[in-house]
Amino acid sequence: MNNNELHRLLEQVKNNDISIEKAMSNLDTLRSFGDMDFAMIDNNREARVGYPEVVYGEGKTPEQVAKISSYMCSNNQNVLITRANLEMYEAVKEVSSIAEFNELARTITIKNKTIDLSEHTIAIVAAGTSDMPVVEEAYETAIMLGNRAIKIVDVGVAGIHRLFNRLEEIKKARVVIVVAGMEGALASVVGGLIDKPIIAVPTSVGYGANLGGIATLLAMLNSCSSGISVVNIDNGFGAAYSASMINQLV
Amino acid sequence: MNNNELHRLLEQVKNNDISIEKAMSNLDTLRSFGDMDFAMIDNNREARVGYPEVVYGEGKTPEQVAKISSYMCSNNQNVLITRANLEMYEAVKEVSSIAEFNELARTITIKNKTIDLSEHTIAIVAAGTSDMPVVEEAYETAIMLGNRAIKIVDVGVAGIHRLFNRLEEIKKARVVIVVAGMEGALASVVGGLIDKPIIAVPTSVGYGANLGGIATLLAMLNSCSSGISVVNIDNGFGAAYSASMINQLV
Amino acid sequence: MNNNELHRLLEQVKNNDISIEKAMSNLDTLRSFGDMDFAMIDNNREARVGYPEVVYGEGKTPEQVAKISSYMCSNNQNVLITRANLEMYEAVKEVSSIAEFNELARTITIKNKTIDLSEHTIAIVAAGTSDMPVVEEAYETAIMLGNRAIKIVDVGVAGIHRLFNRLEEIKKARVVIVVAGMEGALASVVGGLIDKPIIAVPTSVGYGANLGGIATLLAMLNSCSSGISVVNIDNGFGAAYSASMINQLV
Amino acid sequence: MNNNELHRLLEQVKNNDISIEKAMSNLDTLRSFGDMDFAMIDNNREARVGYPEVVYGEGKTPEQVAKISSYMCSNNQNVLITRANLEMYEAVKEVSSIAEFNELARTITIKNKTIDLSEHTIAIVAAGTSDMPVVEEAYETAIMLGNRAIKIVDVGVAGIHRLFNRLEEIKKARVVIVVAGMEGALASVVGGLIDKPIIAVPTSVGYGANLGGIATLLAMLNSCSSGISVVNIDNGFGAAYSASMINQLV
Amino acid sequence: MNNNELHRLLEQVKNNDISIEKAMSNLDTLRSFGDMDFAMIDNNREARVGYPEVVYGEGKTPEQVAKISSYMCSNNQNVLITRANLEMYEAVKEVSSIAEFNELARTITIKNKTIDLSEHTIAIVAAGTSDMPVVEEAYETAIMLGNRAIKIVDVGVAGIHRLFNRLEEIKKARVVIVVAGMEGALASVVGGLIDKPIIAVPTSVGYGANLGGIATLLAMLNSCSSGISVVNIDNGFGAAYSASMINQLV
Amino acid sequence: MNNNELHRLLEQVKNNDISIEKAMSNLDTLRSFGDMDFAMIDNNREARVGYPEVVYGEGKTPEQVAKISSYMCSNNQNVLITRANLEMYEAVKEVSSIAEFNELARTITIKNKTIDLSEHTIAIVAAGTSDMPVVEEAYETAIMLGNRAIKIVDVGVAGIHRLFNRLEEIKKARVVIVVAGMEGALASVVGGLIDKPIIAVPTSVGYGANLGGIATLLAMLNSCSSGISVVNIDNGFGAAYSASMINQLV
Amino acid sequence: MNNNELHRLLEQVKNNDISIEKAMSNLDTLRSFGDMDFAMIDNNREARVGYPEVVYGEGKTPEQVAKISSYMCSNNQNVLITRANLEMYEAVKEVSSIAEFNELARTITIKNKTIDLSEHTIAIVAAGTSDMPVVEEAYETAIMLGNRAIKIVDVGVAGIHRLFNRLEEIKKARVVIVVAGMEGALASVVGGLIDKPIIAVPTSVGYGANLGGIATLLAMLNSCSSGISVVNIDNGFGAAYSASMINQLV
Amino acid sequence: MNNNELHRLLEQVKNNDISIEKAMSNLDTLRSFGDMDFAMIDNNREARVGYPEVVYGEGKTPEQVAKISSYMCSNNQNVLITRANLEMYEAVKEVSSIAEFNELARTITIKNKTIDLSEHTIAIVAAGTSDMPVVEEAYETAIMLGNRAIKIVDVGVAGIHRLFNRLEEIKKARVVIVVAGMEGALASVVGGLIDKPIIAVPTSVGYGANLGGIATLLAMLNSCSSGISVVNIDNGFGAAYSASMINQLV
Repeated sequence: MNNNELHRLLEQVKNNDISIEKAMSNLDTLRSFGDMDFAMIDNNREARVGYPEVVYGEGKTPEQVAKISSYMCSNNQNVLITRANLEMYEAVKEVSSIAEFNELARTITIKNKTIDLSEHTIAIVAAGTSDMPVVEEAYETAIMLGNRAIKIVDVGVAGIHRLFNRLEEIKKARVVIVVAGMEGALASVVGGLIDKPIIAVPTSVGYGANLGGIATLLAMLNSCSSGISVVNIDNGFGAAYSASMINQLV
Repeated sequence: MNNNELHRLLEQVKNNDISIEKAMSNLDTLRSFGDMDFAMIDNNREARVGYPEVVYGEGKTPEQVAKISSYMCSNNQNVLITRANLEMYEAVKEVSSIAEFNELARTITIKNKTIDLSEHTIAIVAAGTSDMPVVEEAYETAIMLGNRAIKIVDVGVAGIHRLFNRLEEIKKARVVIVVAGMEGALASVVGGLIDKPIIAVPTSVGYGANLGGIATLLAMLNSCSSGISVVNIDNGFGAAYSASMINQLV
Repeated sequence: MNNNELHRLLEQVKNNDISIEKAMSNLDTLRSFGDMDFAMIDNNREARVGYPEVVYGEGKTPEQVAKISSYMCSNNQNVLITRANLEMYEAVKEVSSIAEFNELARTITIKNKTIDLSEHTIAIVAAGTSDMPVVEEAYETAIMLGNRAIKIVDVGVAGIHRLFNRLEEIKKARVVIVVAGMEGALASVVGGLIDKPIIAVPTSVGYGANLGGIATLLAMLNSCSSGISVVNIDNGFGAAYSASMINQLV
Repeated sequence: MNNNELHRLLEQVKNNDISIEKAMSNLDTLRSFGDMDFAMIDNNREARVGYPEVVYGEGKTPEQVAKISSYMCSNNQNVLITRANLEMYEAVKEVSSIAEFNELARTITIKNKTIDLSEHTIAIVAAGTSDMPVVEEAYETAIMLGNRAIKIVDVGVAGIHRLFNRLEEIKKARVVIVVAGMEGALASVVGGLIDKPIIAVPTSVGYGANLGGIATLLAMLNSCSSGISVVNIDNGFGAAYSASMINQLV
Repeated sequence: MNNNELHRLLEQVKNNDISIEKAMSNLDTLRSFGDMDFAMIDNNREARVGYPEVVYGEGKTPEQVAKISSYMCSNNQNVLITRANLEMYEAVKEVSSIAEFNELARTITIKNKTIDLSEHTIAIVAAGTSDMPVVEEAYETAIMLGNRAIKIVDVGVAGIHRLFNRLEEIKKARVVIVVAGMEGALASVVGGLIDKPIIAVPTSVGYGANLGGIATLLAMLNSCSSGISVVNIDNGFGAAYSASMINQLV
Repeated sequence: MNNNELHRLLEQVKNNDISIEKAMSNLDTLRSFGDMDFAMIDNNREARVGYPEVVYGEGKTPEQVAKISSYMCSNNQNVLITRANLEMYEAVKEVSSIAEFNELARTITIKNKTIDLSEHTIAIVAAGTSDMPVVEEAYETAIMLGNRAIKIVDVGVAGIHRLFNRLEEIKKARVVIVVAGMEGALASVVGGLIDKPIIAVPTSVGYGANLGGIATLLAMLNSCSSGISVVNIDNGFGAAYSASMINQLV
Repeated sequence: MNNNELHRLLEQVKNNDISIEKAMSNLDTLRSFGDMDFAMIDNNREARVGYPEVVYGEGKTPEQVAKISSYMCSNNQNVLITRANLEMYEAVKEVSSIAEFNELARTITIKNKTIDLSEHTIAIVAAGTSDMPVVEEAYETAIMLGNRAIKIVDVGVAGIHRLFNRLEEIKKARVVIVVAGMEGALASVVGGLIDKPIIAVPTSVGYGANLGGIATLLAMLNSCSSGISVVNIDNGFGAAYSASMINQLV
Repeated sequence: MNNNELHRLLEQVKNNDISIEKAMSNLDTLRSFGDMDFAMIDNNREARVGYPEVVYGEGKTPEQVAKISSYMCSNNQNVLITRANLEMYEAVKEVSSIAEFNELARTITIKNKTIDLSEHTIAIVAAGTSDMPVVEEAYETAIMLGNRAIKIVDVGVAGIHRLFNRLEEIKKARVVIVVAGMEGALASVVGGLIDKPIIAVPTSVGYGANLGGIATLLAMLNSCSSGISVVNIDNGFGAAYSASMINQLV
């Protein structure tokens, strides 16, 4: 419940549009966290940092994920679960029939409230087809956080004219996410061509001396282009989260 | 020479306020780069990505640094040299008497044009006194790129009340740079408390298992807080550059 | 057989409460080790370092684990098996029907003797739900070694008010185990807030640049807070063992 | 100023043994921190975690170290500076003539208040002569934090009878610090012989595949003996700090 | 075919005990290698370095392993296959019914010729039960190469009296193989107690910061005891091969 | 479509041998890339760098691989898919019945156009039988790119006479690919014996301290022989691609 | 002495143009190596692999370098010493007054025989001014080995139009050396634009997560462009040696 | 004092050839160690493991080294100090005028007793001139431990005929030490050619991806040849110590 919603609720109380009891129940979500024994849902996160808590699925049981989803639905929050799998989705479906599963992105989303999209756009630019799972995770996150977003994929530097062909679209965005594996050179090349902040996401696409994405990560951190900051390997969610904060600055 | 300056110049030509010859000389900087044998100065960088080229001093001789500075001064550009030392400063002083040297930051700056400061502010928050060189490099860069900036230092999590005491100031900034060495926990803690994008800079402050900042870098990349992206170890310049792009978004 | 038990046995002999033969059989466990061909059970471990041997299950066959359990049961020792799996549990069940299996903790316990709990308490504090297996291993170990223990989970620094809410409970403990993955910042934050020794356990919760917990381990070793020592990744057992030694100091 | 001292001060005020003005000045140190521009001295650290702030010298200028020392002396605190050098010592000497420098330990100490030594003892056990700097840092820290401590050096496992010869002394301690470089086997061997908590300190003594102490650190983290927790490479201070917390538990 | 066998064969030819044709067929194995398309069997290896070729199973198909075995059997050589699995064994069984499979050791052996055991003995000393696979590989290799060998297991330093109990047996050996995982301290301790060459084998027993045996390997390479050389992680074969060379020196 | 083919097509148009419509359709492949939503096929790659695009199978779905194959077949291009599996082959079979699958090499090839083999030869020299998959990938690539190639396997330095036996064949090649795992010494030895450029491919054959081929890679990069350059671990494709460029220089 | 020179010498003998004694002295260099106690000069290297031995200066004393130079001069060979310093140059000057020192390249060269330059050209393309030492080492080596070579520097991808401006020159070369530090993206970009073999040289230009060039090396090994092989960090010599072999293929 | 010497002394006592007092003084060295405050000299090392203690100079002060030397001289022991420098030598000279310093080997030796050389020989084989310091340390150690030894240097695999030329000499040794830097291939090649145990010493000769000898170390541990065991980087002493144990086996 953000401040606008809180204001509206109290007006309803004032105007007798809602009973004290109902209001009290609704206000329950204002408590700083919901203690679920195995988890403490951070309820005032939206007020504090701008978005409700996002659920990191990895290492949780389908039951835990479903219970957290149920709790958040009961507070009328939108739900975004990352690193999710089919078992989790089936469990979540039981508590919310409108839950959606993007298998490639490994995300479950529940849209309990309408999402108003931002004025500005996030461009998600990716080097290769194999980077699609990370692109999808970033895209789903961007949308859930209320951003317009476009996907531009398979424009890696081995065929640099493909990138130049899409450059105008990229330049129109307010912030750019560059997703790449292998040597990650796409981030440096884009960084040398545009004047917008770039969030680079190294992916674990590669083998051998790629070291599960570490080579890509190091390359991006050492970019000779300026204006590039980096998130963890395969962290499409984190990139979109940072990009969203930037995209919605007023 | 950015587009505004170009427009102005051509108006001067139109109005006969400037001779064709003079205009041609001024326009020389519009050529895409200045070939100096050992270096190619990227002249259209400002038009392309928003700022003129910044000189990375490491590995260059004082003579090379001075020549590049001289070339940029002749084009009436402001000059920022990072990773500079005293020998470089002495050489640069010869070509521009207004050059300034911040020894702690290891930067040389030449302000040939007035810098208009941005409406918004970048907060540079640092864990300890030993992180000051990186703070200074970030601050000098932020100023040269036209940003308001404040420094908040020695607020590491070993004494977390020091951070809470400065939290309101930090929240007023549009974008926050967090500078920390050792385990770099400050980035995660700040990330959990504010709703602004954070650029985290790991520093090489530490010893042993710190591995020259690698431990800090890895920690920041794995932050459990969202909205944090990371730059290279000790890269105060890079953080400020990204922060500036974000801070000046309209 | 500890010194108290030995004293009691010899009194029984003196008082003719027990036959020489029976006493001899019981004293068998005083021999320094029991040779089982594939293993040498360290019998005088309890006298020497305070606790009987703990069985590390990994890399042993269910049969070996069962045989060791049987031997220790015959000496009336309590049995703690770590890194155990269901197959091992089924084999152990055959030799001791009171064996219990904590699947999350991956521990098998056989309580042949009553465990008197210590006066003081160990607090086990964990950052996230995904750290629960390590929390459980630490908890089972703490209990088997005769300690009071409490679990405080999902209080990571991304929502630091959750930690502050539980701080008084933590402060009442004599020694604190902090369990965290990702960047492990919780250890530093707790370390800056309390005056008790902390044993930090990095977990392998994370991905990419987490490097299977190495990032967390390095971060904890570089903590800017004092009073923190560290054990191996996911080593809930080792942390509880050290904590138990500290908790029971007189 | 700890709680006992605070109580005493207020009694003096009550009994008119001290003027209000003087008391106010003394109470200044109760403020949570002293802002020195480049550093924020954590004044309530002693009340919060049991000891006043310790100054980490590395990366600070001699002037900064001297100013911090001066501030702490004015609050009648004992001062411990680690990773100090001769230049720092000379600067500190100017602000406190009773400052002492242990060159081997790289510590500066100022004893403004008498230190009452603890009832129990910390044993500092080291493998070789080359480990002495870390032993000394640990010893100086232990003493400053109010502990009895003994040093037992050059008892590495290459000549294990040297260790057995000193074992009784080691067993009398309440907590043991084991300092070793190379393969660090001493920690495991001591861990298998005593029933007290051990803080292991890997040192950077070695070459080649020692990797500046990383090999030793990893070995200690993988000890087959229980009851061992580990601090950063060469971190004699951290080991003594943890040991002190344990040694003074009541 | 070694020199003694060659001498004997030629005497048989001289004495007409064998036909020229048969001798020629037997001498075929003297050719420097047998080309099998996918492999070139090194036939003069025994003459050159003292033992026939040993087959490394990993990465070969069961068919390839069987064909190589068949070829070597036809030359009346003993066959040792390491890193073998059940599928390989079943294929080899088809070409030699006397093939034996040691599942723990992952070795297949075919004894076509009687093995005369050496005068001296190799001691294989291991820290824990989990190290048994490596012990078995070393033992099988030692026997196939014609050595007496004894196994002494579960004598790790966490209970060092177990080692002392077996020390006399170890001292009687001419060369000692020490097998250990985790921190590998057993190698250093044994090295400080005996005057025989030691081949240390790090095992991958451990988890987390053990890094798949790398921690153990580094520790052993940094041993403070002299007279220790090291082979690859889990390389029981290599240790036994080196030990055999030493054990059979005249 | 290369320049020769383009020339021929336009001649056909000029001579009325082909309708304008048909020519337009054929020329479609001249567009710089074919946008397939999930992939942008680089159509002018052959004109630009000499060969059509090669499809990297890893991380793509069988459907994606089949669609790309279909597109390239429709442009009458030969198709080479690396890192392919059986599922991909079955999908590709549906779109081109002449597709072939080399399971060991993990390649799918579709030869829509006849391949004219080069005058010169590439020698692919490998240390052991376990390196065969990489040898096969290199061989398939070399053939598809139009090279004569020979395979010389199992000539590792443990039996160096096997290498000398094949040396004359190797010397006849114009460029040599050396494939080896473990310590990769074969590259250095060959490098010291011949006067042709060598492309070295480290393989992931090995275990323990081999680190998945990293040890081999580092060794090859540090070769004391000159004339050796290196590609990624197991990158038979990349080695053959570089070798082909060299082999076909005129 | 190569085959042509040998042929000429023997003709001189046949024609009585040279005394038997003189010829014998000249032929001395045909012996396979010259034993200098601390070094064995590889005399038949030129016949075997095409070039005389190159001296690696690092780790040799100036005296050793001078003696080797003297020996090679007496055999009328050209001398190339890499990783040389001023002390070595001064010592070499004593034995050959025509020795030249390129301080930036760290090479000493002695041209005793005229060098005929090749028909084809090697292009040495570098990302930044700080990469110049490696460029120079490659250039000196290329010239000494008889190649035409051009240098194209400071064309890194942060300002990619600088590269496009020089592309035609690069395309005219028969083989291209790409020298870059930081993320090394230049290699991938060039690789996507030309159809010639590329030897990539990572440099140690960078800091922090660059890890002394390891990040660059890994990036280049993972290039998404084909036709790129890699040499050791800062190994300008090795790159030029491989390039020369390729450049001179007939 | 070894057993022979002890026997002789007691015979002298029995025969009245020596006074009781003198004998007692001589027997003082039989005590298990000499406590020197900063060091405990391991007196019974020779009886236990066959050789007196060797002093590791690194990290000790010249004064400490001199005191230990003096103590050992007073016990009539030969003294070997490794990793020594000139300052140490000057201090040792003061306590024993017969001390010798091998600067290249970094060893100080004091021969108080005649050294009888062994029947068998250790061959020390090295790849390059730059490996000489390690060769010298191994040689000095071998001699001090009573072995015949020969040095064969600069026979690296880049010119493999140099090695073959010396092979007969190498084959005559009982044990071979192979010293090499860079890729260390010499160990594998020698291992494939002889039937004697090999101790391989990786050296830190190299740069870039050599990682200070780590690449060489890993390569040697992964050797495809059998019969090779490895010691730490640059550890000529350790190799010679192991080789001596093997060389003197009876």
